[in-house]
Amino acid sequence: MRTKVVSSRKFIKPSFAYLIEKKRDGGEFTQEEIRYIVDSIIDKEIPDFQLSALAMAIYFSGMSAQETAILAEEMMYSGEVVDLSRITKPKIDKYSTGGVGDKTSLVLAPLAAACGVVMPMMNGVDEEFVISNLQKLDAIPGFRAELELEEFIEQLNTVGCVTVRQDPQIAPVDTTLYAMRQETATVPSLPLITGSVLSRKLAQGSEGLVVDVKWGNGSFIRDVEQARQLARSITRVGRSMKRRCVALVTDMNQPLGDTVGTALEIREAIQLLKGEGPEDLQELVLKLGMEIVRLAGVAGSTLSAKQTVQKHLTDGSALEKFKEMITAQGGDATYIDDPDKFPKAKYVRKLPAPKRGYVHTINAGMIARGVQLLAKKDAAGSKRGSKWDHAVGVSEIKKVGAQVKQGEPLMMIHYNDEARLEAALDYLRQAYRLAPKRPTPPELIVERVA
Amino acid sequence: MRTKVVSSRKFIKPSFAYLIEKKRDGGEFTQEEIRYIVDSIIDKEIPDFQLSALAMAIYFSGMSAQETAILAEEMMYSGEVVDLSRITKPKIDKYSTGGVGDKTSLVLAPLAAACGVVMPMMNGVDEEFVISNLQKLDAIPGFRAELELEEFIEQLNTVGCVTVRQDPQIAPVDTTLYAMRQETATVPSLPLITGSVLSRKLAQGSEGLVVDVKWGNGSFIRDVEQARQLARSITRVGRSMKRRCVALVTDMNQPLGDTVGTALEIREAIQLLKGEGPEDLQELVLKLGMEIVRLAGVAGSTLSAKQTVQKHLTDGSALEKFKEMITAQGGDATYIDDPDKFPKAKYVRKLPAPKRGYVHTINAGMIARGVQLLAKKDAAGSKRGSKWDHAVGVSEIKKVGAQVKQGEPLMMIHYNDEARLEAALDYLRQAYRLAPKRPTPPELIVERVA
Repeated sequence: MRTKVVSSRKFIKPSFAYLIEKKRDGGEFTQEEIRYIVDSIIDKEIPDFQLSALAMAIYFSGMSAQETAILAEEMMYSGEVVDLSRITKPKIDKYSTGGVGDKTSLVLAPLAAACGVVMPMMNGVDEEFVISNLQKLDAIPGFRAELELEEFIEQLNTVGCVTVRQDPQIAPVDTTLYAMRQETATVPSLPLITGSVLSRKLAQGSEGLVVDVKWGNGSFIRDVEQARQLARSITRVGRSMKRRCVALVTDMNQPLGDTVGTALEIREAIQLLKGEGPEDLQELVLKLGMEIVRLAGVAGSTLSAKQTVQKHLTDGSALEKFKEMITAQGGDATYIDDPDKFPKAKYVRKLPAPKRGYVHTINAGMIARGVQLLAKKDAAGSKRGSKWDHAVGVSEIKKVGAQVKQGEPLMMIHYNDEARLEAALDYLRQAYRLAPKRPTPPELIVERVA
Repeated sequence: MRTKVVSSRKFIKPSFAYLIEKKRDGGEFTQEEIRYIVDSIIDKEIPDFQLSALAMAIYFSGMSAQETAILAEEMMYSGEVVDLSRITKPKIDKYSTGGVGDKTSLVLAPLAAACGVVMPMMNGVDEEFVISNLQKLDAIPGFRAELELEEFIEQLNTVGCVTVRQDPQIAPVDTTLYAMRQETATVPSLPLITGSVLSRKLAQGSEGLVVDVKWGNGSFIRDVEQARQLARSITRVGRSMKRRCVALVTDMNQPLGDTVGTALEIREAIQLLKGEGPEDLQELVLKLGMEIVRLAGVAGSTLSAKQTVQKHLTDGSALEKFKEMITAQGGDATYIDDPDKFPKAKYVRKLPAPKRGYVHTINAGMIARGVQLLAKKDAAGSKRGSKWDHAVGVSEIKKVGAQVKQGEPLMMIHYNDEARLEAALDYLRQAYRLAPKRPTPPELIVERVA
């Protein structure tokens, strides 16, 4: 499946130690050198300890846009590259660095399908902070996240959208490399993140990519400047790989929307699919949706992009696609028509404001951690069924800028277990800072990189 | 053998990924963290790929003098620490970063012994450039480089000097770490070199250390500023470990002395032990010898140090100790009295100067490589006996500043095989640059760091 380019001059295999030294000293790898490294990962010829030293050298010395593009391409061809050529509709994917309370991917795949854009949505590695799309969809009885590649393509062709776990045949070198990077503090390297994202997303068959790079206390990117750099890196390298790419840098210094938790978030996604729901999420869905239809060529102007997106949210066609997708993947779509079927927590209580004032800052990461403590079942509890308690979570989250009186709820906590509540409360309480003066709320969309 | 310090507060083992990240971001390790890392290497609990990523993070982020001292101490106690307390004489060791044509260690051990200073000379890892002391002594029939630790101590006690291969029980963590560093381009890290040298040398039982840091094209340190830094690092960290330390930064931009090759170098060492031989080596032996006797407290002033060293070179006592050492280690000392017993090469030819002029620069590394090609036996040739042809090498090396006519010898080449000669000539020819003007010869001793 991997095309070997025949080179006119003979490539003499260098030692791995030489390659590490070259990168350590800031050298630029040739295409053949990068191909040799990727081949050596496939063939398990490069020892782990040399690969990790190389990754750390890349962390410090960086890679040029050209090196990164070659890396992405070589990693992409390390496994299956999904052939979507029999689908005539435009194929645009979305990648997000991940955020707390983010329901946009659940909404965008059916929304895009309703607009005539195919979105081959494969979910890769779970990030630490984030409840993944698949964890959320797991709240719907019967939903299957694992499809064969053929089924995946077939559903894209018939329904127009699909949400599955990344197939193990996709970019296996990235999978190997990423697992190693998590253990060696080499995840936050711009070229390695860029190579990872592009190799996976492009192997999944898309022609273009809309990227949401989040920065803040609920993202693994804590610094807005780093987020801008990553947005530039992915779009630049993506373009050099002849793919249409656009990125938004967005705020993740508070949860998106009003809820965090699996069933609670699905309910919010259903609202969004009806053109309703919290303002921040409505805005983000609209902006990302507009980028998708424009990148796909479905809409030419900003205005027509906006109209197209809004139309399919309000006319029910996006919601219909969502139900179609769920049904196609074995899920019970009656849950979507009647969200009260989702399990409910035994108890709901407020998190009271300790004093009056304005919500000054929220630590989204701490809220995610609190919800995790409420929901994640231990080994014993997870023997049967899901590892996650779908009923629990937080709702009615007061956002930055909200005014509260002492004792008023900062959020509602849905829980099933007193001991878990106590553990979670530590984080949820600490997540809020109140202040006497109204703060300037953070800007949701910081920059557009195209 | 390793003392475990009981800490008042409990040390909670961090993940290795956390430790790598901490160092990646420039953090300073605590004593407990370094001890934990070293313990994890001993117990093989840290995976290779995390250790190598950590080494690369140290390469880029460095370590403080305090961290380096802790590392050296922990690595030192990772194995046997030789107890020389029953030897009442002062115990001073010498460490050199290694250089082409350097015979000083062969001379200094017996010289020190003659002056009443015990030098526990264990030879560690072979450097790429350098013919090691043990390779040279292998030219003497019967010489044994492997002694049990007890024999080692006994010979130090009776003869006063010994030259052996480093015992595998000495600083085993350094041995593991060094082998990994060679494969991952993490050898040239100041704190890691410093930790390596001090852990080994101090585990070998010495109270003080004289260091010869060489810089130039015949050293692995190509930059004089790096050499100065390493000299400062070793002396500073050594002192913080309560050991007397002094370092000389010396020139390695041309071979030391007139010869390169095992038997040829031993013959030159014999001259030096008689207070004769090439000027540069005489000077270096004198200067390093003076440092040794002063550090040992045998001589108080510079003048008395000089007199002590010169006396034992000219009165034959240093040479006598050399013979004693060789005899004690099973070698045939009659070779020292009659150096003509050493094997001679079948052919000797000159390397002719391609034009008239002055020797402007010499690449010592290339000369070393040339001699290696003449001498190193392949797998087949080394089945029986030595892997090295002791008869071959180069002599009468013209040094920087020497004036030559066209066709005059730049050196004499001793060889046994025409094919090997051809390969070697490529390097030997390229090693020389001639120029019409007399250059300023490089200064042999660049700096003294105490």
